[in-house]
Amino acid sequence: MSRSVEGFSKWTKEEKIAWVAKNYTHQPDNSIELIKNYWNSDEQLQQLHDEFIENTISNYYLPLGIAPNFLIDGTYYAIPMAIEESSVVAAASKAAKYWSTRGGFTTEILGTEKIGQVHFLYPGEKEKLTDFFNSIKEQLVKDCKPLTANMEKRGGGLSSIELKDKTHDLQHYYQLHCTFETADAMGANFINSCLEQLSKTLEREAINHHIDVEVVMSILSNYVPNCIVRAKVSCPIDELGEIASVPPREFAKKMIQAVSIAKASPYRAVTHNKGIMNGIDAVVIATGNDFRAIEAAAHAYASKDGQYSSLSHAEINGDQFSFWMDIPLAVGTVGGLTKLHPLVKLALEILQNPSAKDLMRIIAVAGLAQNFAAVKSLVTTGIQQGHMKMHLLNILNQLGATVKEKELLSEEFKNKTVSFSNVSKALIKLRS
Amino acid sequence: MSRSVEGFSKWTKEEKIAWVAKNYTHQPDNSIELIKNYWNSDEQLQQLHDEFIENTISNYYLPLGIAPNFLIDGTYYAIPMAIEESSVVAAASKAAKYWSTRGGFTTEILGTEKIGQVHFLYPGEKEKLTDFFNSIKEQLVKDCKPLTANMEKRGGGLSSIELKDKTHDLQHYYQLHCTFETADAMGANFINSCLEQLSKTLEREAINHHIDVEVVMSILSNYVPNCIVRAKVSCPIDELGEIASVPPREFAKKMIQAVSIAKASPYRAVTHNKGIMNGIDAVVIATGNDFRAIEAAAHAYASKDGQYSSLSHAEINGDQFSFWMDIPLAVGTVGGLTKLHPLVKLALEILQNPSAKDLMRIIAVAGLAQNFAAVKSLVTTGIQQGHMKMHLLNILNQLGATVKEKELLSEEFKNKTVSFSNVSKALIKLRS
Repeated sequence: MSRSVEGFSKWTKEEKIAWVAKNYTHQPDNSIELIKNYWNSDEQLQQLHDEFIENTISNYYLPLGIAPNFLIDGTYYAIPMAIEESSVVAAASKAAKYWSTRGGFTTEILGTEKIGQVHFLYPGEKEKLTDFFNSIKEQLVKDCKPLTANMEKRGGGLSSIELKDKTHDLQHYYQLHCTFETADAMGANFINSCLEQLSKTLEREAINHHIDVEVVMSILSNYVPNCIVRAKVSCPIDELGEIASVPPREFAKKMIQAVSIAKASPYRAVTHNKGIMNGIDAVVIATGNDFRAIEAAAHAYASKDGQYSSLSHAEINGDQFSFWMDIPLAVGTVGGLTKLHPLVKLALEILQNPSAKDLMRIIAVAGLAQNFAAVKSLVTTGIQQGHMKMHLLNILNQLGATVKEKELLSEEFKNKTVSFSNVSKALIKLRS
Repeated sequence: MSRSVEGFSKWTKEEKIAWVAKNYTHQPDNSIELIKNYWNSDEQLQQLHDEFIENTISNYYLPLGIAPNFLIDGTYYAIPMAIEESSVVAAASKAAKYWSTRGGFTTEILGTEKIGQVHFLYPGEKEKLTDFFNSIKEQLVKDCKPLTANMEKRGGGLSSIELKDKTHDLQHYYQLHCTFETADAMGANFINSCLEQLSKTLEREAINHHIDVEVVMSILSNYVPNCIVRAKVSCPIDELGEIASVPPREFAKKMIQAVSIAKASPYRAVTHNKGIMNGIDAVVIATGNDFRAIEAAAHAYASKDGQYSSLSHAEINGDQFSFWMDIPLAVGTVGGLTKLHPLVKLALEILQNPSAKDLMRIIAVAGLAQNFAAVKSLVTTGIQQGHMKMHLLNILNQLGATVKEKELLSEEFKNKTVSFSNVSKALIKLRS
């Protein structure tokens, strides 16, 4: 056997596992056993999961947790979250509970527009291209009809095609900038199929009209600044209550300061928004959506004004404290993994089988709750107190501590620094 | 039972599942069964996974795949990837195989500096604060010693503390801007513990020196523009070969055009970089690192020059084609989930138990490979051809197609548009 290999993707799963284990691990038999320990005992179910991607060898477990008590626009939700970070579900649940007695979360859909582009080069006069584009616009739409007909029945479709002159950014560079509505689908396949058709029509008509067009590529954009949901919490300052010995007015002021700092400092903004995405991604994954697309859109949106900045906002208006966020979320509740992954299907049922718009609301709220919880910790007790509780448990598990030992050391470390060496020393001491 | 709930986190897993199933699903017994179908039959292993987060009800399966044939700095790797998107492992494997006969990937670590900040307000004269800071700088470092001693043994520690005047961005706003080296750890807990100590010392000394300092918060930054790895491929243009009927020189030109477009158009750049992150995140997750941190850093880095732009670059220099990327990657190979999650431990073993630096190299290469594969498809066959093969299989699985039906319809759809309605019609026709 060699560490480079031919035709790997055609091998059986067993062959692939054996090859990796023998070539890349010290105890191949143990490695193979470990990999198989994570297979589902239901063979058919396992096969389903194997076929999601190529060269699957096992199931990577992300913990699936539940954050209850989310009051969103008057309805209670329990939100499924798939995430490995220890404090996220706990923090989201606490923020949800807290706001459930202060009017809950409110949301607003500000747009659902998706975007795709045909990128092409044209070295001639702009006016000639504009005339050409106007003359073929109808044909472009018409040629897409076989692809758009079904989406139109569901209320979506190709909304607009615009010719964009990008020659000031790159020589000869133009776009067909297209907007779409994709109903309850995320729409990537629909949009890409339409764009490839638009590109074919463009090329064909360019030849017919003796226009020198070179298409470079056609693809949807994950940047969706008009597919935005707003999530918000708001209550009279006095109702904020005392938070970790900090009186309500002082707490409100500290929250405003923290958000102002996240707006002023990109170093802070990145981590502030990372906290938002902890909540967002956990729901995005549990509901079978593509978190790389959501991440890319969110962070690009955070940089849209030229300096990377906070996605969330806070203000005190008279006696009212408000905390809110506008975030781009192109998600779907049909297509992709939504019907295919049994736990995704269940997660969507737990969320009351939401439309794509309702899922945007829920996901944004999970992000805002997470952000509120993180900033609240930061300006009161500090972030480490909450982290350390779970971190301690992880270290103790790693050291093979018993239930009783975990109890005793959790008590002992309430006011001590949690580090691997401190905890292992304490465990050794306890055992001796 | 009600849809709002008290003390949920204290309930047993069984109680939590029963409550969610009864309150939020139509057939509670089926839902409970489904949730349990995803439990591991090894109770102790399952408990380990349950304790990673709060309120765990089950294991969310992400397919764990293997992309072989990655030749990186002269060594062959098979890279474990945890990802749900159908074409990512296939594309990465193809790009790896392609470059393995063209010199492979080369990498370079450009820095490993981590960052954390104490954010505070000070309304007085700047000079007075600067003098105060200089007078306590030694004490700040000294007070951290109990926390930094262990890290120093491993070659890391607190590297520098700088006072930053941010008052032009926000009134009275200053930072202790601290840099750290964290050896093979990602270092979040280490950095945050140091920062909370620095903040305590700052507050204590401020009182002693009658300096009016108000600490707002102390936390690491996930923005790490000096923790950068470069990954690169390069070969003579003629050796690129013919790609999908496109001759080598033409292909090289198209790759350059595509990257130029991703630099010129933020709409394109977001999706271009999203493709990079498909590869990055899959390895980040498989190796137990925090993909939200990596995503936030990467996209903020992509926007650092004021307009969101491509992370990767391409050039033709004489007869040489080169394609490369610099990307911030703060990852760890010790701490966190690395020893705790058995599949993470195995993934790291498959990667030859890399140092944090070596893991940076591997992850960056996975991202570059993914990007190369995506752009290559885009400028030659179009993105849909590759996507559609896996998409078709997913639709057929959803429709419960047999192995034979899958074969026949895969053949039939080689040159037909894959959509749910087209495939289901074809399956009905085949069956009748």
